[in-house]
Amino acid sequence: MGAALALGRRGLGRTWPNPAVGCVLVRDGRILARARTADGGRPHAETQALTRTDARGATAYVTLEPCAHEGATPSCAAELTKAGIARAVIACRDPDPRTSGEGIARLRAANIPVTEGIRRAEAEADLAGYLLSRTRGRPRVTLKLAASLDGRIATASGESRWITAPPARRLVHALRARHDAVMVGAGTARTDDPLLTVRDIGHDRQPVRVVLSRRLDLPFPSALTATLDAAPLWLCHGPEATEEARARWSSDPRVHLLECATEGRQLSPAAVLSALGTAGLTSVFCEGGGSLAASLLEAGLVDELVCFTAGTALGAEGTPMIGALGLDSLAAAPRFTLHETRAIGPDVLHVWRRLPLFSG
Amino acid sequence: MGAALALGRRGLGRTWPNPAVGCVLVRDGRILARARTADGGRPHAETQALTRTDARGATAYVTLEPCAHEGATPSCAAELTKAGIARAVIACRDPDPRTSGEGIARLRAANIPVTEGIRRAEAEADLAGYLLSRTRGRPRVTLKLAASLDGRIATASGESRWITAPPARRLVHALRARHDAVMVGAGTARTDDPLLTVRDIGHDRQPVRVVLSRRLDLPFPSALTATLDAAPLWLCHGPEATEEARARWSSDPRVHLLECATEGRQLSPAAVLSALGTAGLTSVFCEGGGSLAASLLEAGLVDELVCFTAGTALGAEGTPMIGALGLDSLAAAPRFTLHETRAIGPDVLHVWRRLPLFSG
Repeated sequence: MGAALALGRRGLGRTWPNPAVGCVLVRDGRILARARTADGGRPHAETQALTRTDARGATAYVTLEPCAHEGATPSCAAELTKAGIARAVIACRDPDPRTSGEGIARLRAANIPVTEGIRRAEAEADLAGYLLSRTRGRPRVTLKLAASLDGRIATASGESRWITAPPARRLVHALRARHDAVMVGAGTARTDDPLLTVRDIGHDRQPVRVVLSRRLDLPFPSALTATLDAAPLWLCHGPEATEEARARWSSDPRVHLLECATEGRQLSPAAVLSALGTAGLTSVFCEGGGSLAASLLEAGLVDELVCFTAGTALGAEGTPMIGALGLDSLAAAPRFTLHETRAIGPDVLHVWRRLPLFSG
Repeated sequence: MGAALALGRRGLGRTWPNPAVGCVLVRDGRILARARTADGGRPHAETQALTRTDARGATAYVTLEPCAHEGATPSCAAELTKAGIARAVIACRDPDPRTSGEGIARLRAANIPVTEGIRRAEAEADLAGYLLSRTRGRPRVTLKLAASLDGRIATASGESRWITAPPARRLVHALRARHDAVMVGAGTARTDDPLLTVRDIGHDRQPVRVVLSRRLDLPFPSALTATLDAAPLWLCHGPEATEEARARWSSDPRVHLLECATEGRQLSPAAVLSALGTAGLTSVFCEGGGSLAASLLEAGLVDELVCFTAGTALGAEGTPMIGALGLDSLAAAPRFTLHETRAIGPDVLHVWRRLPLFSG
């Protein structure tokens, strides 16, 4: 199962709207075949592994319950049965209503013994994006925060490049690659004019770039519009976006507009994530700015925090990494559980999670 | 030398105004005696070790050059010579003008071979407080910062107890114990009404409590005044403190007043540290608040940062951990080198140092 989990992880950010599953076929203590869900989500991991070997009498290790729904192709449960596997070991169930226990039931109905729950916690953490999208209709949200040790992301004069060092910035690119989408608020798009692409790590598949702009009044042209051939751009806007702005952006087929409800003076973070989930995204890597970070935290919609702390201080007049949260008391503050801390180059990496990431 | 360094470290916070030295006497591969500088600074480590054994023919491992100055008692260099040691191994030199190479010269003049510089970097880090007080006339400054992951030390409503968990708070008490003094600004003294004593870790010696109050207008009585029998209280004030305030505080012999120059609307941090150094302190553990932290950082007077980060966010309206720094650019921001990061209970500990802590 360890090998299947590792395989599945390699598909993260590449298989949406489908889960990044890993499958290993074993007989007599030898691995016959292994596969992960293909880029784009099809074929599924099991289907691919089965095409590579004669699986009769094998044990299939799968990180997620095999699907039970027939479409253009037969279900994975049917394919595993037809291939004559002797046993299935499954890390966690698939909450998709078309499967949800039915995949396991079909295997058992075909007299194939099934063991489930092996390394479930790891599988659920890896697949949290898919699981959340199926159960709550929203992608998993990772919030990246890179700041000075007093929590500032820019000096009073707006200087922010670079607070953290190259090793931290390289990890950010690797993290972008492991998510279906990278997301920023309009302020960051305006101030930083970012590319939001994966660069310099030999990666071939770009995540969707999502920018929130209530009035759809982003600068045009920009680094984002200049790189539309490299990666798609999705713009989430409110009902108040003018017809003119909509027309200008929608004239380019590489730009996708999503209208979302507003909440006060901002786009509703829940509405945005719901729209992104409906559009198929299972994980989003949010890179700020402070207002978007605050509205996601306030709404309880942050699953993981990836923080980089540099050994410098910018002082109270610097730009805060998280905007106003409107807390009444310390007890009301969002709380996260430490997942990992280590040095990364000259900076500190600390990763925090809302636990459990997924409870089935 | 490892044993001598460990011994010396046990004296940190207990020997001021003298350095916390460790001494181990070895002959034929066996340890004959070991000692550290006694509480209060006398007797010195060497003198104590020599009283415990016949050191003829032994090698003396000492973390700091033995003193060369005779006072009420003979110098350590003279005592080691008289005891008939065969060799001395010394980690680093003592910059005190009365010794500064003279201790080593006297040993060599008595035909005792001396090896110096063994594990010098560690010794200089441990003794940095003493070395700085001798070379720059100020104690070593450790700045403690305990905050939410967005760098806030209290909610907008002023709630700050507790952002970090008991393991971090216990470590703070251990750190207080390893410093000669604990220091806070007037705002913290007013807002938190702290005790600033070492508690709950079985410690028998209290550091001096230093409070900065330009106008000497601290609340009276307070938790500090109620505990004067437990630990001394030193108040640093400006020339503008009224006669009335001076008279009230100096009426208690357990309170020590130090008049320091002001700089703008604050006490000059350099003047304060100089006064504390003159009074004999070799290390100060500063626990805030944000304004004092900022003025120390701005003046380049912070040698070590001990940061505790909790897995919570308080938002931009919370109290910043570091006040305004008046930076013109990112390049002008104070920079520190990561010394250590690890989980401490549910929080993250990260320690940063200005390097080198001491260059002789």
